[in-house]
Amino acid sequence: MNISHIEHIGIAVENLEESIKYYEGVLGLKCYSIEEVADQKVKTAFFLVGQTKIELLESTSPDGPIGKFVAKKGQGMHHIAFAVNDSTEALKLAEERGVTLIDKTSRKGAEGLNIGFLHPKSTQGVLTELCSKEK
Amino acid sequence: MNISHIEHIGIAVENLEESIKYYEGVLGLKCYSIEEVADQKVKTAFFLVGQTKIELLESTSPDGPIGKFVAKKGQGMHHIAFAVNDSTEALKLAEERGVTLIDKTSRKGAEGLNIGFLHPKSTQGVLTELCSKEK
Repeated sequence: MNISHIEHIGIAVENLEESIKYYEGVLGLKCYSIEEVADQKVKTAFFLVGQTKIELLESTSPDGPIGKFVAKKGQGMHHIAFAVNDSTEALKLAEERGVTLIDKTSRKGAEGLNIGFLHPKSTQGVLTELCSKEK
Repeated sequence: MNISHIEHIGIAVENLEESIKYYEGVLGLKCYSIEEVADQKVKTAFFLVGQTKIELLESTSPDGPIGKFVAKKGQGMHHIAFAVNDSTEALKLAEERGVTLIDKTSRKGAEGLNIGFLHPKSTQGVLTELCSKEK
């Protein structure tokens, strides 16, 4: 698996602008990028905190995964993403070790990373992403 | 505020032993410490992932904060902890900036850190901890 660090923490928010104000104005972090990921129906804002990013996620549609999450649970921590050497290999290994995959193989995510998700029912309740840089 | 990195991610679990099996056996991380924090009614297990720790939290009592969380929401991500230079100063600054504090001043947490929590109602839905090392 070779996890090197936590690549990012995904946080679902209702209003990206309001949340950026909190992370910048209260915590003193700096938003370095805002990006829309159309196929996930989200607008994202990134902050770097040491070697880990915080990825704020606002849904662009009530029927997107973040829209549904916020409707059901409210704003809050949504997923944890581990940096691995090769996300496709890591997904395969996770499946061999009994994990149910959401993504059978890696796909493009925010910031051009190759990403894939593990189902929280087989990860002790935590929606877990594995991601790697393009080689 | 001077946040240097994410000190840890707190994850509420139902059964510490089962969860350690997943983090070690599937993700390949190594549990380096198990500690009971009596006043929080939790047993914790720590893993180091790059510069950030994962802190698994199992309640030792149904009426503890983690016991209540798991009963209401199930297992999952519970809080994010930022490393600051001085948690008492950082709590004061957060309050000046309009945040509702759970801890008015810092107290001892796991691993001997000085910690304090911000209320999720004023942190965009994320239970947030500020922590610093003893000086």
